[in-house]
Amino acid sequence: MPASDRPTVLVLNGPNLNLVGTREPAIYGNQSLSDIAAACAAHGEALGLVVDFRQSNHEGELIDWVQAATGTAAGLIVNAGGLSHTSVALMDALRAAGQPVVEVHLSNIFRREGFRHHSYVSLAADGVICGFGPPGYLMALDAIARYIKG
Amino acid sequence: MPASDRPTVLVLNGPNLNLVGTREPAIYGNQSLSDIAAACAAHGEALGLVVDFRQSNHEGELIDWVQAATGTAAGLIVNAGGLSHTSVALMDALRAAGQPVVEVHLSNIFRREGFRHHSYVSLAADGVICGFGPPGYLMALDAIARYIKG
Amino acid sequence: MPASDRPTVLVLNGPNLNLVGTREPAIYGNQSLSDIAAACAAHGEALGLVVDFRQSNHEGELIDWVQAATGTAAGLIVNAGGLSHTSVALMDALRAAGQPVVEVHLSNIFRREGFRHHSYVSLAADGVICGFGPPGYLMALDAIARYIKG
Amino acid sequence: MPASDRPTVLVLNGPNLNLVGTREPAIYGNQSLSDIAAACAAHGEALGLVVDFRQSNHEGELIDWVQAATGTAAGLIVNAGGLSHTSVALMDALRAAGQPVVEVHLSNIFRREGFRHHSYVSLAADGVICGFGPPGYLMALDAIARYIKG
Amino acid sequence: MPASDRPTVLVLNGPNLNLVGTREPAIYGNQSLSDIAAACAAHGEALGLVVDFRQSNHEGELIDWVQAATGTAAGLIVNAGGLSHTSVALMDALRAAGQPVVEVHLSNIFRREGFRHHSYVSLAADGVICGFGPPGYLMALDAIARYIKG
Amino acid sequence: MPASDRPTVLVLNGPNLNLVGTREPAIYGNQSLSDIAAACAAHGEALGLVVDFRQSNHEGELIDWVQAATGTAAGLIVNAGGLSHTSVALMDALRAAGQPVVEVHLSNIFRREGFRHHSYVSLAADGVICGFGPPGYLMALDAIARYIKG
Amino acid sequence: MPASDRPTVLVLNGPNLNLVGTREPAIYGNQSLSDIAAACAAHGEALGLVVDFRQSNHEGELIDWVQAATGTAAGLIVNAGGLSHTSVALMDALRAAGQPVVEVHLSNIFRREGFRHHSYVSLAADGVICGFGPPGYLMALDAIARYIKG
Amino acid sequence: MPASDRPTVLVLNGPNLNLVGTREPAIYGNQSLSDIAAACAAHGEALGLVVDFRQSNHEGELIDWVQAATGTAAGLIVNAGGLSHTSVALMDALRAAGQPVVEVHLSNIFRREGFRHHSYVSLAADGVICGFGPPGYLMALDAIARYIKG
Amino acid sequence: MPASDRPTVLVLNGPNLNLVGTREPAIYGNQSLSDIAAACAAHGEALGLVVDFRQSNHEGELIDWVQAATGTAAGLIVNAGGLSHTSVALMDALRAAGQPVVEVHLSNIFRREGFRHHSYVSLAADGVICGFGPPGYLMALDAIARYIKG
Amino acid sequence: MPASDRPTVLVLNGPNLNLVGTREPAIYGNQSLSDIAAACAAHGEALGLVVDFRQSNHEGELIDWVQAATGTAAGLIVNAGGLSHTSVALMDALRAAGQPVVEVHLSNIFRREGFRHHSYVSLAADGVICGFGPPGYLMALDAIARYIKG
Amino acid sequence: MPASDRPTVLVLNGPNLNLVGTREPAIYGNQSLSDIAAACAAHGEALGLVVDFRQSNHEGELIDWVQAATGTAAGLIVNAGGLSHTSVALMDALRAAGQPVVEVHLSNIFRREGFRHHSYVSLAADGVICGFGPPGYLMALDAIARYIKG
Amino acid sequence: MPASDRPTVLVLNGPNLNLVGTREPAIYGNQSLSDIAAACAAHGEALGLVVDFRQSNHEGELIDWVQAATGTAAGLIVNAGGLSHTSVALMDALRAAGQPVVEVHLSNIFRREGFRHHSYVSLAADGVICGFGPPGYLMALDAIARYIKG
Repeated sequence: MPASDRPTVLVLNGPNLNLVGTREPAIYGNQSLSDIAAACAAHGEALGLVVDFRQSNHEGELIDWVQAATGTAAGLIVNAGGLSHTSVALMDALRAAGQPVVEVHLSNIFRREGFRHHSYVSLAADGVICGFGPPGYLMALDAIARYIKG
Repeated sequence: MPASDRPTVLVLNGPNLNLVGTREPAIYGNQSLSDIAAACAAHGEALGLVVDFRQSNHEGELIDWVQAATGTAAGLIVNAGGLSHTSVALMDALRAAGQPVVEVHLSNIFRREGFRHHSYVSLAADGVICGFGPPGYLMALDAIARYIKG
Repeated sequence: MPASDRPTVLVLNGPNLNLVGTREPAIYGNQSLSDIAAACAAHGEALGLVVDFRQSNHEGELIDWVQAATGTAAGLIVNAGGLSHTSVALMDALRAAGQPVVEVHLSNIFRREGFRHHSYVSLAADGVICGFGPPGYLMALDAIARYIKG
Repeated sequence: MPASDRPTVLVLNGPNLNLVGTREPAIYGNQSLSDIAAACAAHGEALGLVVDFRQSNHEGELIDWVQAATGTAAGLIVNAGGLSHTSVALMDALRAAGQPVVEVHLSNIFRREGFRHHSYVSLAADGVICGFGPPGYLMALDAIARYIKG
Repeated sequence: MPASDRPTVLVLNGPNLNLVGTREPAIYGNQSLSDIAAACAAHGEALGLVVDFRQSNHEGELIDWVQAATGTAAGLIVNAGGLSHTSVALMDALRAAGQPVVEVHLSNIFRREGFRHHSYVSLAADGVICGFGPPGYLMALDAIARYIKG
Repeated sequence: MPASDRPTVLVLNGPNLNLVGTREPAIYGNQSLSDIAAACAAHGEALGLVVDFRQSNHEGELIDWVQAATGTAAGLIVNAGGLSHTSVALMDALRAAGQPVVEVHLSNIFRREGFRHHSYVSLAADGVICGFGPPGYLMALDAIARYIKG
Repeated sequence: MPASDRPTVLVLNGPNLNLVGTREPAIYGNQSLSDIAAACAAHGEALGLVVDFRQSNHEGELIDWVQAATGTAAGLIVNAGGLSHTSVALMDALRAAGQPVVEVHLSNIFRREGFRHHSYVSLAADGVICGFGPPGYLMALDAIARYIKG
Repeated sequence: MPASDRPTVLVLNGPNLNLVGTREPAIYGNQSLSDIAAACAAHGEALGLVVDFRQSNHEGELIDWVQAATGTAAGLIVNAGGLSHTSVALMDALRAAGQPVVEVHLSNIFRREGFRHHSYVSLAADGVICGFGPPGYLMALDAIARYIKG
Repeated sequence: MPASDRPTVLVLNGPNLNLVGTREPAIYGNQSLSDIAAACAAHGEALGLVVDFRQSNHEGELIDWVQAATGTAAGLIVNAGGLSHTSVALMDALRAAGQPVVEVHLSNIFRREGFRHHSYVSLAADGVICGFGPPGYLMALDAIARYIKG
Repeated sequence: MPASDRPTVLVLNGPNLNLVGTREPAIYGNQSLSDIAAACAAHGEALGLVVDFRQSNHEGELIDWVQAATGTAAGLIVNAGGLSHTSVALMDALRAAGQPVVEVHLSNIFRREGFRHHSYVSLAADGVICGFGPPGYLMALDAIARYIKG
Repeated sequence: MPASDRPTVLVLNGPNLNLVGTREPAIYGNQSLSDIAAACAAHGEALGLVVDFRQSNHEGELIDWVQAATGTAAGLIVNAGGLSHTSVALMDALRAAGQPVVEVHLSNIFRREGFRHHSYVSLAADGVICGFGPPGYLMALDAIARYIKG
Repeated sequence: MPASDRPTVLVLNGPNLNLVGTREPAIYGNQSLSDIAAACAAHGEALGLVVDFRQSNHEGELIDWVQAATGTAAGLIVNAGGLSHTSVALMDALRAAGQPVVEVHLSNIFRREGFRHHSYVSLAADGVICGFGPPGYLMALDAIARYIKG
């Protein structure tokens, strides 16, 4: 099946995730974000999905992307980084998207500072995956693939 | 009176308000944001006002617009969407503007989730209008017109 | 159209609103409550509405009036004063009324003491208008007129 | 035994309970308050009690009635409606009454909004009955009858 | 009607209720739990009900019993003792049971320590009875009988 | 000086204060409210004041009285009983009165239940006297007399 | 009656009260602490009391003085200044003193910052007087005199 | 590889999970727990793992099982149901186990009642998976398999 | 004195205490629970006491044991582990026991996570000992011996 | 071994502990502080320790003593009385001391007012002993002796 | 030393700081942001530093700049304006930067509204300077210079 | 200019700051307080200031010194140590001083325990400097010098 016929999954990464692999490896591991993007692309292809993998430090840009995905993407995977805990606006955008939303965090946010225990993204997500490092993205792709099938 | 001589009112719409009319019509109605913009333009003209109607998903852009309006606009109408509940920076910009500020919400935010009950915009606004749907914008224009007169 | 055929709007004013115009003019302006009543009557007439304008310092009397309005009034406008923040009973009466309810406050209650930031009336109201002084009542009448039409 | 020799039980109903049967039947059932009064009268008679059944939307009137019952009534049954959650003054009156007090609510207040989970009346009551609809009043009469016997 | 044809009501007693009659008589009275069981059996028989009366100090056993009652019992009466305030798991079991649930407490828990004012059982119960001592169980049986009839 | 020329002090007593002397003497002492009224009258006369001593169980009536005292009374002494802790409306009336306000409580409210530790009346009062029993009223009269002089 | 035979009242002033009359006269008036001491001495003499008037900025010294007064003083008047809100130790000393304790504050602490609304001294005091300025001390002496008599 | 040589994964299910498939299918789906167990067994076999799948309504039994798994199991998957939110003891057992722990919830607990938003199990888990229904268990097995490999 | 004549002290250990000596030795030391039991037996014998030393992961079993000890044991020593912080039911059992209760914790719970700072067992205990490791049990035995003597 | 060669233990008593034996004997017993000092001296001698037993009502003096003990004392026993709940400064001094610290309270502070449930001293202490009356000091000496040995 | 060899310090200014000098001069003074930039440049030159002085109303742009500074700048000075109180994402970026971070505020944020008392930037900063107006930037430069030296 | 003509700056150090250099060097550095005093003296001299540098563990003594400085010192630098977080009395003294007040902390208190995040001294200070170690005192002297000049 040519890529243009395959469903697209938008994978959104929020502020500072471009630093993954360099910043606090004890928490986030030492794979870079482009390593993760490559792994997602490969895994998506195996699942019959096109992966549109993006990162931005700008809340507004992330919201623009979520809105643009409405009607074109088959699912959203969101690791909103620090915005997870503070952005009602991103939550509203995700809720309006009308597609399956899976939240991913590299670390187990419940074992970190108290202000990371609450995520607005969780209120908009169908499912949440956290603490598994980069493979969490692949688990999320599997979940999106199941949503598309069933 | 030519438009260039009429006072300008800046109407700011925050994140996701561009989706109005498509998203959660039970809450927000089914008029689109450009319908609302058109209604504001017409109502503004009747009141002798030029309406500068804008929307952005970017907090920073909204703040830039508020700052640019200082000294040029005769009043501000602000529906900051999800940023209402989280943005101290937008509140600071509005307070610094030195013009009448009217806050508008399409829905009655006090009958929704708890985190929508507090608005930083309210702390900077002269008046608050919520729950009346698109006509709330016209009510706000009326209020600005009264501020300009009196 | 004779008054007896026009829809009636009940405008309820709670404790201390009879003092408006004399008390804290910096907050409430210097129009008296009968000035506001007269403005409402005139504006209501222009909208094809009869305005039944009342004030009481007694929570029970306000509730009695709300109950009596059920089936006779076409809408309620409520400025419950200090009771806004404390009366579950008034909220229950308003919810039971089954007509459009618009809450009005002369001042912007969100820029005053913390205990004024929560209003039980807001939980029963369709829309909320605050901070516009006496014209807020007229805006509320406009809103009721729209509810009656649409 | 003639009514004048039988102990009297005062049954007090607070704000909006006069609307029972018409308002939110999903929560309160469709028996009217006079249906409940009649059932109480009949049940009381079977128990050898005179039932003095009253309703008021006025906190002060309810307090007046509690005070008047001191020394004349053999027990009090109180459904204070929305005042349950806000009236320290009513609680003080009930505590001063020196007779058995049974609190009744038609609905299970613990499955409703958070502000209904706390009742000042509960702090003054010997027992609490809630969620059984109109029969809750009869259960309360049974309890008062037991208090009188024992 | 033979017992085997009569509907069964499961009466569950949680931790320490086996001590009733010996422990803190000022709060709980001096009737023992088997006195209460006997009174329930007699009252149940009068109502055409079989009463299955049990006590356990083990949360898990109480949950097992609730689950076993699904499809066999016609109603549940629950005095969960100290577990009332702490057991989400018991609440979940009661919610899943799909039968009428009545919560009973011997004492008025709202006049005791603050941590007894919240009950998870209340969130799963149709009705709540507290503060009437052992007769509260009989009142609960009456309520279950009404549920079965109506 | 004839009474009609002497300044009047309005002494307001809220709900249940008519029971003083009969209710909870350990807390409130055994002087009745009319004993206190008589003592106030005598002490007021000695100070050259007319004492207008009232009690009501109705919040609305208390507010009516406060409003009526504006411009006629030279000071207000308020023991609002249970309303002290719940009535924003009474506080608003007292603030609007524009005369010296002294709050009195018979008992030391800070040694009682937590919900009695906050008084809205205190926010409107010039001074607060509590815990001295009936003589607290006389101390308040002394204070009002000083305000009138100075 | 010679001074040595008259009962002694210990008047304790906490930190910064030595500055009264110079510091924030809008809040505390412009009488100095020695003016207040002199007024207390005179008023005490009129009441047949010896007044032992002291001030310290040291919590420990205030506690030492309270302890020393046990068995010698007939009552304590305490204005603990900022320590009112923070010193459990001073409260414990006052509770142990076993004599009447009257708390005085020059200003109405309930109209100032939130951290001044709670006083540990109030938990140990028989009565509380606040907001009357220097005459509050004289009112407290009157109260102590009444305690001694009755 | 014979089963006896393959690493064992203990899958623990807490209270009420034996009801899955019958209880609240809108939240939990309609697959039964033995369906899930069978799916886990099959998936485990494909991953070279033996799955020891258990359920108990008893906190103590769950703790016993966790302790017994120490040194024998290669990983733990825990869906503690209602105990997730209340059991410090289970958390302590999991922390002591010294093996990878993955928490699973069928539903997205962050979109349910507030008391389900905090999980003590999360504090002991390496990773958390919630909201994916039964496949969440298989995702957890994948994660354990990765831990064993890497 | 033969063991059968010596008073018995019940030493209860809650969940996970069977792991002591293996789990988190930095916090709990490396003595095993049977080492502690042996030390208690020896120390008890020296004090003329029989020590009945038990451990369970089951809240219900711990409560059963407390109840069984009523009338037979001369004192209880309780280290309830994680249940200390969550079990109202265990607290109720201990309060009903009517014997001296001493709470022991191996670690200083006040220097650990916030949820360990509150213990329901403390509300039922006569005395509390924490932070001394295994010798804390011996200190508790000494205390029980003193209670028996005096 | 001569006293000068034996390790010294500093026993610090905070505000109001000099009143022990006279104040609230129901809570603190009727042994005086010098009785306790004597018992400590004797018990210390038996343990080969010199006991330096002090009391002060002054936080600053207690801190001075803690600092002076650094390098000279072998351990500290601290009953800080009311300062336990309020003094960050004393906690800092104890943490800086670098010697074993044992906190003692005569009463079980967890069964008293809420503000006594938190102790800053506990955050600096190795172990905590409360509720055992004067023998608690001897238990603390035993613990210090164990620290010195091991 | 040519500028290209001197260490660079990035000075970041958040939302609305471009208005300094025009907005609320009572709080922020009347020096403009370019005055401050010029003063920083001059002072930096004196210290042998190049100052890269920037302002943005966009959180994302500020984060981009922080990330770009990693490995090139020798230190960061951050006045994040209103974002200080709300941006976890900016805090994460600063923590990842790995260079000295100094937070500056022109006003003393602890004397302003409660929501300004908490700063996420403080959690990432080495040092905090607030309340000194524009010279606070120069103090921060001095501090960075010390970090570079030592 | 002779020292007697130069303005004096009072530098106050609170409890435990005499231990600086020995206690927790990871937090406070290893310069002693007399090193800091010497550096302040030298830096003050360079600025034309006399530095009066003091330390006390006694809150009362610190307050005495603040009061004595009124009218003699030209500014106050305060590092109140643990008293920063608890002393309303010291804050009151500083507010009354009427001179510039600069607060200094050696460590960044916002990265330490929660109870150190609030400082009463901050409420009285013009500016706050924390986290820079001993040089923070010199920065404070610079600030005082600027206040004196301008």
